[in-house]
Amino acid sequence: MAGEEVSNKQVIFKDYIVGFPKESDMELITSKIILKAPEDSNGILLKNLYLSCDPYMRSRMTKHDRPNYVESFLPGSPMTGYGIAKVLDSRHPNFKAGDLVWGVTGWEEYSLITSPELCFKIEHTDVPLSYYIGILGMLGMTAYVGLYEIGAAKKGDRVFVSAAFGGVGQLVGQLAKLSGCYVVGSAGSKEKVDLLKNKFGYDEAFNYKEEEDLDAALRRYFPEGIDIYFENVGGKMLEAVLSNMRPHGRIPVCGMISQYNLEQQEGVHNLFNLISKRIHIEGFIVFDYHHLYPKYLDMMLAHIREGTISYVEDVAQGLESAPSALVGIFSGRNVGKQLVVVARV
Amino acid sequence: MAGEEVSNKQVIFKDYIVGFPKESDMELITSKIILKAPEDSNGILLKNLYLSCDPYMRSRMTKHDRPNYVESFLPGSPMTGYGIAKVLDSRHPNFKAGDLVWGVTGWEEYSLITSPELCFKIEHTDVPLSYYIGILGMLGMTAYVGLYEIGAAKKGDRVFVSAAFGGVGQLVGQLAKLSGCYVVGSAGSKEKVDLLKNKFGYDEAFNYKEEEDLDAALRRYFPEGIDIYFENVGGKMLEAVLSNMRPHGRIPVCGMISQYNLEQQEGVHNLFNLISKRIHIEGFIVFDYHHLYPKYLDMMLAHIREGTISYVEDVAQGLESAPSALVGIFSGRNVGKQLVVVARV
Repeated sequence: MAGEEVSNKQVIFKDYIVGFPKESDMELITSKIILKAPEDSNGILLKNLYLSCDPYMRSRMTKHDRPNYVESFLPGSPMTGYGIAKVLDSRHPNFKAGDLVWGVTGWEEYSLITSPELCFKIEHTDVPLSYYIGILGMLGMTAYVGLYEIGAAKKGDRVFVSAAFGGVGQLVGQLAKLSGCYVVGSAGSKEKVDLLKNKFGYDEAFNYKEEEDLDAALRRYFPEGIDIYFENVGGKMLEAVLSNMRPHGRIPVCGMISQYNLEQQEGVHNLFNLISKRIHIEGFIVFDYHHLYPKYLDMMLAHIREGTISYVEDVAQGLESAPSALVGIFSGRNVGKQLVVVARV
Repeated sequence: MAGEEVSNKQVIFKDYIVGFPKESDMELITSKIILKAPEDSNGILLKNLYLSCDPYMRSRMTKHDRPNYVESFLPGSPMTGYGIAKVLDSRHPNFKAGDLVWGVTGWEEYSLITSPELCFKIEHTDVPLSYYIGILGMLGMTAYVGLYEIGAAKKGDRVFVSAAFGGVGQLVGQLAKLSGCYVVGSAGSKEKVDLLKNKFGYDEAFNYKEEEDLDAALRRYFPEGIDIYFENVGGKMLEAVLSNMRPHGRIPVCGMISQYNLEQQEGVHNLFNLISKRIHIEGFIVFDYHHLYPKYLDMMLAHIREGTISYVEDVAQGLESAPSALVGIFSGRNVGKQLVVVARV
């Protein structure tokens, strides 16, 4: 198969956007690709199997005036993101044909990766392969880094997680429970709230859409206040949380998904709480913590094999469904970690 | 003198307020006091010499629905705050008549302190006594803790200080310069801006009132961005700073004086920068760092004796002028650290 020229379906990013992304911001085309890594390169040629839809990708659809933490997509080129793939051909000493890898790849059937240093070889295949763009990849690491490296979670802490049913949120809550914390999550539907309590072991959960007064809701679940707020949404929720934090509370800031599609972000008006409660807020990006990955992987593989952690994926079938799957996460249509199957091994 | 009954002028806090404090929110009265610590107490009886006017006192003039980091003043009772005093009588083993102390005292000529554990005995009197409610007290410690404990300042860091001519700000800039940082300050008058550059050695300074676009001003002085923002003002300045922070920047939050007198605090709309730049923002209260005081005192005494640090005080004469002096700091009327002389030793 290597060396052959084949057709290659691709999801093209059309142009920079403002506001909510729409399926029509992306276009499915078919081009050609030779299934071979160029001889004078370090590249690898991949057959993509799974693609990840993640909130941070919204930022890549915007044209930024100043340098941004992730590069914007290039209009007219394929979308890119985390994926799982099989190596078809390799000019890089770390990889050979047949290897399974995860890392940044293109939204297309086949990708030529010219800097494969950013790919990880998958060594353990007794767990579902798709987990490597989720619980065993950067998503799981995000939960872990935020909760422990920034949040310094310890037994007895009162932890609140927003977007708790999202890919990251479901893991944060379960890790916090394993550490002996009291954990409450918010989500956007009754179904998700029920699953948070019944499947993921959250102590309490509520539907933020049904709460007229978020401040009152938080007071109800945290009469003594919040030690750690794992921030995924921003805006009004952050404001309500700040009023309910305990002294010396920690807020790892993982995302602000409620704000990504607004032309003007909501204002947060009660930052004085930072002082009066000595709150530590810190944004983080999981890319900065790659060195912790081997330790994390061992820990999480053990949890998965022992069944002490649950994990829910929302799987869209086929590259054609990728635009709709991505758009869906910004309205909370996904149930659990959103991914797309491009091909089976 | 001890044991005698004398008249005692006092500044009484009349009632909780909203908005800017006014002189008429306080009232000068004369009562009586016996210059003796009660025999069955641990108390000390003080003759007050200097009183400190500090921004955090605004918070004590508000009635709070929830527990606050400092207690509100009690309507009908004297104001309290940091002061320097001479012990006239003592029932506490750590103090004796004639000692000079600094700590929390009343806004009055004489005070009975029933919990003198919060008073520090002044051991070094070769420096101006008033320094112990400023550069050698909690104010100096505030600059030190924010810059080093939270800000982790090191050589080469680009440091921005707002309210840079205030009591804390003037010290932050000088300490940062001594550590080899590039330092820029903002203040509210041409006079202050000139002094920041010429007296305190700031690399640059600007008058925020003359800048239509704070974001552009910060870009001018920090073309490569800000590593540490020592936050004293909040609101629009914080918003402009967030757009100009460098990756892994630190924001010790000491105060938000621009917000204290607003009924609704200004919203900060660009908190997503916390994530994209991995910013660490942390509020702090100097009371939590008392254990560092002996080390700080030695360091700062050395600087003062060697003349490597300058310090400007704005001294109001007489207890009668205390309400006006306090009100003045919220409109930036003071030039340097505001204090009130009640009596000379």
